[in-house]
Amino acid sequence: MTPKHCVTLLTDYGLEDGFVAACHGVIASICPPARIIDITHLVPPGDVRRGAAIMAQTVPYLPAGVHVAVIDPGVGTRRRAVAVAAGERVFIGPDNGVLSWAVADPDIQAYELTDQELWLDPVSATFHGRDIFAPVAAHVASGHAVTSVGTEIDPDGLVRLPPPARAVHDGTAAGEVVTVDRFGNVQLSVTRADLERIGARCGGTVTVTLGRHSLRMTYGETFGSVPPGELVAYTDATGQVALAVNSGNAAQRLGLPPGAHVRLTAE
Amino acid sequence: MTPKHCVTLLTDYGLEDGFVAACHGVIASICPPARIIDITHLVPPGDVRRGAAIMAQTVPYLPAGVHVAVIDPGVGTRRRAVAVAAGERVFIGPDNGVLSWAVADPDIQAYELTDQELWLDPVSATFHGRDIFAPVAAHVASGHAVTSVGTEIDPDGLVRLPPPARAVHDGTAAGEVVTVDRFGNVQLSVTRADLERIGARCGGTVTVTLGRHSLRMTYGETFGSVPPGELVAYTDATGQVALAVNSGNAAQRLGLPPGAHVRLTAE
Amino acid sequence: MTPKHCVTLLTDYGLEDGFVAACHGVIASICPPARIIDITHLVPPGDVRRGAAIMAQTVPYLPAGVHVAVIDPGVGTRRRAVAVAAGERVFIGPDNGVLSWAVADPDIQAYELTDQELWLDPVSATFHGRDIFAPVAAHVASGHAVTSVGTEIDPDGLVRLPPPARAVHDGTAAGEVVTVDRFGNVQLSVTRADLERIGARCGGTVTVTLGRHSLRMTYGETFGSVPPGELVAYTDATGQVALAVNSGNAAQRLGLPPGAHVRLTAE
Repeated sequence: MTPKHCVTLLTDYGLEDGFVAACHGVIASICPPARIIDITHLVPPGDVRRGAAIMAQTVPYLPAGVHVAVIDPGVGTRRRAVAVAAGERVFIGPDNGVLSWAVADPDIQAYELTDQELWLDPVSATFHGRDIFAPVAAHVASGHAVTSVGTEIDPDGLVRLPPPARAVHDGTAAGEVVTVDRFGNVQLSVTRADLERIGARCGGTVTVTLGRHSLRMTYGETFGSVPPGELVAYTDATGQVALAVNSGNAAQRLGLPPGAHVRLTAE
Repeated sequence: MTPKHCVTLLTDYGLEDGFVAACHGVIASICPPARIIDITHLVPPGDVRRGAAIMAQTVPYLPAGVHVAVIDPGVGTRRRAVAVAAGERVFIGPDNGVLSWAVADPDIQAYELTDQELWLDPVSATFHGRDIFAPVAAHVASGHAVTSVGTEIDPDGLVRLPPPARAVHDGTAAGEVVTVDRFGNVQLSVTRADLERIGARCGGTVTVTLGRHSLRMTYGETFGSVPPGELVAYTDATGQVALAVNSGNAAQRLGLPPGAHVRLTAE
Repeated sequence: MTPKHCVTLLTDYGLEDGFVAACHGVIASICPPARIIDITHLVPPGDVRRGAAIMAQTVPYLPAGVHVAVIDPGVGTRRRAVAVAAGERVFIGPDNGVLSWAVADPDIQAYELTDQELWLDPVSATFHGRDIFAPVAAHVASGHAVTSVGTEIDPDGLVRLPPPARAVHDGTAAGEVVTVDRFGNVQLSVTRADLERIGARCGGTVTVTLGRHSLRMTYGETFGSVPPGELVAYTDATGQVALAVNSGNAAQRLGLPPGAHVRLTAE
């Protein structure tokens, strides 16, 4: 197997401790040429859905390699640790769904991480990122066959997160908030294609309903399609519809956390 | 052109999403040997002046290479995307002034990024960091001539931020707060030379006037030149005068945000 | 001397300024092949004990190399700048104890950084991380002998932080809070061996006394050893006893900052 020298990391470890560095150190020790790309380590603690969403939206822009995601509230319990081979990519993490939105390839093989020769010794009960996931990723990055990280398992048995709610009927596109980014931009599960189906056109107006409130706003190209301080709906860089305030914070303005339900209609 | 394998990034993307990683991934895919140095990604959203100040103060310590700055509230509108060649350095970003304080070399060439062959396809309307700036930077880092990133433009037409206010007359050095760092140290536009001109000498006392309040403090070498908890004025690591509290936070104590005006006199 | 191309950095510089990047730039300029691992830059400003604890817990997982720690409230005063050679590792930082818990090897040599040829010129009074520690580390990483960074000094004269309080007697293990991590897990100075000496066994119950309050909780393997929302004591990934709330934040629940005293008894 050709070495895959790019290892990417996504965790909820935060940046104020040495946890991420320990993972980097383990990887660099086992696979010195590895390039390590930190996707983020600021996923809210234990927020598997948020981790899954960031993985799915970021991985397409990363070099082929080994993609580790450790949002692992069940660390040390019976949840499985797995590797999923999908074309040129190998995904490694707990089998709790955090990988499930990123693994787009339907033709995958899955393995439970059972070969303890690839782990650190001893293995702690609470830091499998350092002791299991990082060293296995580094071995695979060094050219160790993913088929030899442990027992092959049925990919259909992997835990899958239910996708965000999303439906179009009677001229209404319904969905939910998937993520809120640093700018307060509110990404919805509704897609550009959904808006086309309900007759929205770029430059026109849409009505967004949140609970009992309805707001009219421009469906524009970008933030600057409306004056500063005004709301805008737009298709974001992942192809999904998002709500923003030009030079402002839409999540704060609208009070919209991840999971909140929204409905859109066009004029 | 010799490859410039160092690419540096400054943005306001934050660290909780996958935005920075997507840029890293794009660069690593196009230019695998690139070393990527993150200057910071925590510039307050849209704060072009703050980004410009950090660029200017950090770039002199970075290896020659490609320096990308994306503080870009006008993304997707008609603002230009540019590359500026200055000696061994190439600066890339939106033409809104964020690069203007870092480009110290008077002998520069400028180009508008118009060669779409160097961009990702498709290009989103809101994430030019990933889709335009990162890939163009990576191509230049790989040896692609900066002269071929697009149309040459007149450097005199580049947007320049007005420099921070600063004046010396009648024994008073007047200026403004440029940045406040993590420690609460308050960096002024006033320089060591300005203080020399008004007769301040290291070890002596200066009076700092903020609005209607005046404060006397030591003009010392470093934080420890005064007892813990006391104010000190000093020349900081960029050659500018700054105010600190030894083992404390001067910005909180003084209530001094960036842009606030100050006057200094010597005794 | 064989080059040690791994340089690690721990500081309290924060991530919102360009300070860390300036250090990276200096290192990459002097030693282009260096791999730089950031341990953390979010140590609370001036918190030498916290920096020392993170260094001690992280360094064992890092490749041999040069380990720089700059928590340096006395920068620019008479505190010494030192390098400590300990086997395959070289530690560099201010002589204020920040390195003292990480230097486990009893057979060490120590040097004061006095060879100004290795420093940047000029040296600022307040940013020795950039101007002294980073360039010296980079020269050592490039193969410059650590014996030539300056004057050899007596290792017994290095500043050592007193270790966290810890004692076992009369069936009670007493200690203090060492660190609180991002998850709110509270790491104690008490060790697994201490708990064994007082008769605690994994799966049993311990009583934790904080001031006048006592709390009974399971001494379990991991967070998931108790139901969500419940307290658990466990042996953490460094071999020390810690308190957590499964899917919650023990530090917030218990109001336990670093330094707080605790006592544990077994049932």
